[in-house]
Amino acid sequence: MDQQLRRDAEQILHASLQAVQPDAAVRRALDGFVPGPGKVVLVAVGKAAWQMANAALGVLGRVDGGLVLTKYGHLRGELPGLVCREAGHPIPDANGFAATEEILRMVRPLGREDTVLFLLSGGGSALFEKPLLPAAELQDLTARLLAAGAGIVEINTIRKRLSGVKGGRFALACAPARVYGIVLSDVLGDPPDMIASGPAAPDSSTCAEALAAARRYGLPLSPTAEALLRQETPKTLDNVTLRIAGSVRELCAAAARQCRLLGYAPLILTDQLCCEAREAGSFLASILRTQAGAGGRRAFLAGGETVVHLTGHGLGGRNQELALAAARGLDGLDGAAVFSFGSDGTDGPTDAAGGYADGQTWAALRAAGHDPGADLADNDAYHALDAVGGLLRTGPTGTNVNDVSIGLLRG
Amino acid sequence: MDQQLRRDAEQILHASLQAVQPDAAVRRALDGFVPGPGKVVLVAVGKAAWQMANAALGVLGRVDGGLVLTKYGHLRGELPGLVCREAGHPIPDANGFAATEEILRMVRPLGREDTVLFLLSGGGSALFEKPLLPAAELQDLTARLLAAGAGIVEINTIRKRLSGVKGGRFALACAPARVYGIVLSDVLGDPPDMIASGPAAPDSSTCAEALAAARRYGLPLSPTAEALLRQETPKTLDNVTLRIAGSVRELCAAAARQCRLLGYAPLILTDQLCCEAREAGSFLASILRTQAGAGGRRAFLAGGETVVHLTGHGLGGRNQELALAAARGLDGLDGAAVFSFGSDGTDGPTDAAGGYADGQTWAALRAAGHDPGADLADNDAYHALDAVGGLLRTGPTGTNVNDVSIGLLRG
Repeated sequence: MDQQLRRDAEQILHASLQAVQPDAAVRRALDGFVPGPGKVVLVAVGKAAWQMANAALGVLGRVDGGLVLTKYGHLRGELPGLVCREAGHPIPDANGFAATEEILRMVRPLGREDTVLFLLSGGGSALFEKPLLPAAELQDLTARLLAAGAGIVEINTIRKRLSGVKGGRFALACAPARVYGIVLSDVLGDPPDMIASGPAAPDSSTCAEALAAARRYGLPLSPTAEALLRQETPKTLDNVTLRIAGSVRELCAAAARQCRLLGYAPLILTDQLCCEAREAGSFLASILRTQAGAGGRRAFLAGGETVVHLTGHGLGGRNQELALAAARGLDGLDGAAVFSFGSDGTDGPTDAAGGYADGQTWAALRAAGHDPGADLADNDAYHALDAVGGLLRTGPTGTNVNDVSIGLLRG
Repeated sequence: MDQQLRRDAEQILHASLQAVQPDAAVRRALDGFVPGPGKVVLVAVGKAAWQMANAALGVLGRVDGGLVLTKYGHLRGELPGLVCREAGHPIPDANGFAATEEILRMVRPLGREDTVLFLLSGGGSALFEKPLLPAAELQDLTARLLAAGAGIVEINTIRKRLSGVKGGRFALACAPARVYGIVLSDVLGDPPDMIASGPAAPDSSTCAEALAAARRYGLPLSPTAEALLRQETPKTLDNVTLRIAGSVRELCAAAARQCRLLGYAPLILTDQLCCEAREAGSFLASILRTQAGAGGRRAFLAGGETVVHLTGHGLGGRNQELALAAARGLDGLDGAAVFSFGSDGTDGPTDAAGGYADGQTWAALRAAGHDPGADLADNDAYHALDAVGGLLRTGPTGTNVNDVSIGLLRG
């Protein structure tokens, strides 16, 4: 392993995560917040819910109740005046459904003078859910869509119609109270109706699109599910103000700043990467293989959210798979590395945030008795990278603004 | 369609093909050519064989016989003193086998004072073949490898061991005559033993690698085939001089020059692109989507050779598929286009060199009654792009130095 590149990768990882912590984002967005004369109820949903709520309490001093709903392991303590709940992600579970009902019970009685401060972050789509189908059926449909490699846009287009809170329906439940929403975006391009399936955003997707996606992935639809997919969502909402407070754009910019501090001239290629993870890894490795000839310390950044179409039965996540594929492309190349991580710190169903590979990784895997090509084919990047010190670990970060993949040339 | 981008794409296509015509490359490489005191026999093999032979005759005036072997439709007339033959590509056929025997009959009697001027270009791997297996078995193995998406390196590692001319064995047949080789490379990174399976290059691949690739793609091996894969190729050759006269690097540089002439600031990302075609298209579209925000006329170039793992039954080629996938990523984006073409002018089994897509292409396809997502899934980029004027057509170009894919921003 190239120790200097590995150290630099860790530094870039940690510095860029620091910069997209929810606290600063929430404080900025609350500058424009003027609550109504009535009560202020705080509802925070998503992987960054605790941090966002904590930051809001720091600015506002107090609120008149509310609830924080986040993923298991993501609560960091009590918050005065707020109920704190954890639930399942990415597969919704009964704890999420129960917490969603608690939230609805809090907001339904509110009047015209009251305000719902709604703090939304990635993961909210699975956590914040009032299923209009039997829970098992909904979980099955979600699992099928994830396994088939459906994009988050397609998943949300379907899921918001099977839900009592998504696609603007939560804002309807809050009315006549005002909703002031602050959003950490984990959807490329930041469309408000797609982030956590847009509980407080007019829905731009249509029933026709939902039915087409269901057909595309061969979803088995019960008559109830089919009827729900044909039921339209609100297209206007007059009680809502939304602020996008952070996104993958800031993550890329922060990573690029740290690259520059370490002497790498950075180029942000894209912040809307959405292709197959392993092919993105190959593409980045191709770039490094050619650019290595030009000399100089350089960094190539691509932010976004790649996808994995599962064909094997191994353990991994899109960032780890991208790094393992890059290892093949970098094999034998000196002074070059590719690393990739999810800003939420949990890449796929693993305890790693992502993966690291350099020109020595592929050979190190073979030397460790792995067949890295077979590992990649089996979607088993986790065990492969773990064997050669190629996992990046941060623990849950409290933020969620997609992923960034970075190619480094030591020059 | 964005008419200006479409026109600029055509100009870049034609100017860059002009620059990688074999004539100039051959003339440069012949500067260092001093034939022995005996006969000079010219052997030209590959898609650019006719042009290379024609250029060599232009420089040398005459040779003492020889043979030009190229793909069907690639001969452009008689050449004085040379036998001209056409044969099957990418699947080898009986005409190729017969022409290879003719060549071997010409070189075997040569002595120490004689010289074989060996002009090699892409496609030579299929055209120049003396099968050591029944032809049907060899054709079946090649077809299986292509259909499974095997890379050219893997295909050649296997094929050179099943052949009497590949992997340095042709140079052995020429000995004791000297071999002066001029190579137009269609293999990324230009490893001489991989270009056309290296008929005149010491072989760096091993029997172990050949057997591993055969296992990876589940090739059904007869006992004879298995025995041949275990038979090693020459690792040194002392009668050979090789010149790499042109490659995808020159293609990228020429395309970048023309971009600059048209006002686009070019960036060559890589000349070693080798990932899945459609994912490369998505990646390039992601780059344009982000960079469009920065303004300015810019071009992003990626040279190499992508692969297609066939899942459908449509018609297309890797460049067309890349362009159609880019169309999805560019959908609705103004002033942006991605186009991609093979320098040989024949992309896959089609009459097109490649494809063009811009921000209007996806919608135009829908308006024309296509389901472009389904076309892509069916590997049917040809019919889709044809319906909206998105095919790039040049006819056979007489050269073959891989592909280049270019993203343009009109600014």
